[in-house]
Amino acid sequence: MKDHKIKLGLMGMGTVGTGVIRLVGGHQEDLFKQTGVEVEIGRILVQDRNKERLISVASDLITDDPYRLLHDPDIDVIVEVMGGIEPAKSYILEALEQGKHVVTANKDLMALHGAELLKKAAEKNCDLFYEASVAGGIPILRALVEGFSSDRITKIMGIVNGTTNYILTKMSQEGASYEDVLKEAQSLGYAEADPTSDVEGLDAARKMAILSTLGFHVGMNLDEVSCKGISQVTQEDILYGQRLGYTLKLIGIAKRDDDLIEVSVQPTMLKNSHPLASVNGVFNAVYVYGEAVGETMFYGPGAGELPTATAVVSDLVTVVKNMKLGVNGRGMVAPYKEKKLKSDDEVWAKYFLRLIVEDKSGVLAQLTTKMAEEKVSLEQVIQHPTKDGKDKAELIMITHLSSKKSISHILNELEQLEFVSEIKSVYRVEGSE
Amino acid sequence: MKDHKIKLGLMGMGTVGTGVIRLVGGHQEDLFKQTGVEVEIGRILVQDRNKERLISVASDLITDDPYRLLHDPDIDVIVEVMGGIEPAKSYILEALEQGKHVVTANKDLMALHGAELLKKAAEKNCDLFYEASVAGGIPILRALVEGFSSDRITKIMGIVNGTTNYILTKMSQEGASYEDVLKEAQSLGYAEADPTSDVEGLDAARKMAILSTLGFHVGMNLDEVSCKGISQVTQEDILYGQRLGYTLKLIGIAKRDDDLIEVSVQPTMLKNSHPLASVNGVFNAVYVYGEAVGETMFYGPGAGELPTATAVVSDLVTVVKNMKLGVNGRGMVAPYKEKKLKSDDEVWAKYFLRLIVEDKSGVLAQLTTKMAEEKVSLEQVIQHPTKDGKDKAELIMITHLSSKKSISHILNELEQLEFVSEIKSVYRVEGSE
Repeated sequence: MKDHKIKLGLMGMGTVGTGVIRLVGGHQEDLFKQTGVEVEIGRILVQDRNKERLISVASDLITDDPYRLLHDPDIDVIVEVMGGIEPAKSYILEALEQGKHVVTANKDLMALHGAELLKKAAEKNCDLFYEASVAGGIPILRALVEGFSSDRITKIMGIVNGTTNYILTKMSQEGASYEDVLKEAQSLGYAEADPTSDVEGLDAARKMAILSTLGFHVGMNLDEVSCKGISQVTQEDILYGQRLGYTLKLIGIAKRDDDLIEVSVQPTMLKNSHPLASVNGVFNAVYVYGEAVGETMFYGPGAGELPTATAVVSDLVTVVKNMKLGVNGRGMVAPYKEKKLKSDDEVWAKYFLRLIVEDKSGVLAQLTTKMAEEKVSLEQVIQHPTKDGKDKAELIMITHLSSKKSISHILNELEQLEFVSEIKSVYRVEGSE
Repeated sequence: MKDHKIKLGLMGMGTVGTGVIRLVGGHQEDLFKQTGVEVEIGRILVQDRNKERLISVASDLITDDPYRLLHDPDIDVIVEVMGGIEPAKSYILEALEQGKHVVTANKDLMALHGAELLKKAAEKNCDLFYEASVAGGIPILRALVEGFSSDRITKIMGIVNGTTNYILTKMSQEGASYEDVLKEAQSLGYAEADPTSDVEGLDAARKMAILSTLGFHVGMNLDEVSCKGISQVTQEDILYGQRLGYTLKLIGIAKRDDDLIEVSVQPTMLKNSHPLASVNGVFNAVYVYGEAVGETMFYGPGAGELPTATAVVSDLVTVVKNMKLGVNGRGMVAPYKEKKLKSDDEVWAKYFLRLIVEDKSGVLAQLTTKMAEEKVSLEQVIQHPTKDGKDKAELIMITHLSSKKSISHILNELEQLEFVSEIKSVYRVEGSE
């Protein structure tokens, strides 16, 4: 910080980077009034200096040499919005090594290497903030770290991936197939050409690793988040859910019972009365349940140029305020609780099952007897002939609370039964306790 | 702060005070891990030392002498949860004068005298936090001050009074009358014996004064918030709203167009698709629209022992962290924008009108001609005979955007018209732009 001016080094000039340039340029007066210093962009790192840009900036600001940011003593803060693991990780480590504060929107990096990066930041008395990495424009990390600092959180449920929420919303509202909506989402820019990371739930799993680390004060690793995507979801599943009063959503669930923790992402039948059930389109929302506060929900845009840039620049304001007070890197709380993960017989939920069985008398009785042996009992059952007839019936069941282990067992057992033709689908059920 | 121990002086041992005692006592380990110091209750001020309490505390902690808190050098922080203007205001001023930090849940006081108290806190390098004063368990003040520090907020809409939301929800869902639901709310403890402050909108107006001050960076006075309550709301209004796709809610609206501001509280016809329309019962929610972030919403419990105490103790955690860093009273941003309030011809909205008119030909034509002269045009009209017949018709109209001044004029004009028997109701309409 020289002459009451803060210079930032911006790494990446894609969607979010462009938003940061717009906000820092356009909100000069507000930033000055709130921090007492001028904030300006000192240099911008890009891969290709000759690429056409969405916004025009002075050409001498642009470089393809990271060290013109990392080793420039005039640059106080690095804003990393390039994404991906490498070279972003090496650049951030070097920035911290050089005593520069870092703001990042990089969920992949924070989910995989957050602990290492935060440790380095603490060693160097540097700030490392990453509000934009989860649920774009929603200030949910601040809410967990500060707003609920006095409470003990027991459950976090999130719609934290806009692409999949858009696809499921369209499938629910318009009756379209997964494949058709995915194509449409790709043409609108809501889904990438290779949509795997979104539709298979990995993107949501990264965000749940970050949210559960902050919410439960444990260091949650990405590979400890069990993960299933939406590519197998069918129109039939959605319709049967609706008939029973449920909306199918890709939900990240982090749950704590005493000191035992589970974190997962999966398509989930959500009771319509749950606040998350009406979060539609590309919107994100995070539902937080605290022992003292009870039910809360935070709703907003999960992505996009300006919403994500808002989170980045708000983090930047905090960095600058901390610089003025000389307290960077000193407000962070490292995970302090021992991590105990639930085994499959400790993860309890209700389940939605859809089976095709032979349509003859006694089948339902045999089935429920089998399930009772595994201590799985039923809350609701619908049975009717399949559309194509042929002596088959479709069974839709919602179980009472069952352990994940029991459900796995019973599914194995059912597959062996001669009168069960096919197990069509299995979903976790939430919001109907 | 002595020997790594922080002592707080608690003023008030009602609902919220009891919650604070429970949280501080029950969450010792978490508070210590997050702040690095022990936090304990040093003394509790009560009005009547002999009153029966919900929770037992050591009797030597309890006093009816405020100076045993205010002038005790061992007490670092005052937590004020007694409510009301005096003596709370004098106590807080004296606490700040003595260099003690203050956390308060007192919306009445902050709405009326917040500027004076915050000025004193800044002079004395003391923290004065009041998250609990608006929407109990929802960390909305932090979101406005920190989460959206980089953005320019243009609209805040809030369901910030649980009592009135409970009453309107019950009236909507069960068809009960205002009077019956109010009685029920009183018997359940959701409404006070004298419900005026809640049902006439004053409580919500106080919260909107606080929210708009923080959101727009201007010093908003309580008497600049125009305010109308729900005591005149009828079952007919709710039903006609539902027929047109609207839910009637008591909504606080703070809106900025360029640098012109309006803040009001009134029963409002809210389009069902708006995120606030499905916030029911005693829950609160605050909808925030920012130029960059777009639509966000924060949902949770607006009151109650533990939710409100969560906000108080989370503020306390921030105070303690600031004490450790030696930066109390230095993070606050005073209002820095010039306040320009809209006049009535600058406040634009759609309106819902319900009239009883004579049921004869040409009435609607004359009415709409009259309205067109005032530049009020109609988006929707329903006309039908009144239930009791007698040559009268009921007209339900939703206007296009009109100024508040035009609407006032036209209502005066309509009253003069011989064929208009009665103006039954007028509501602002939101969420259908």
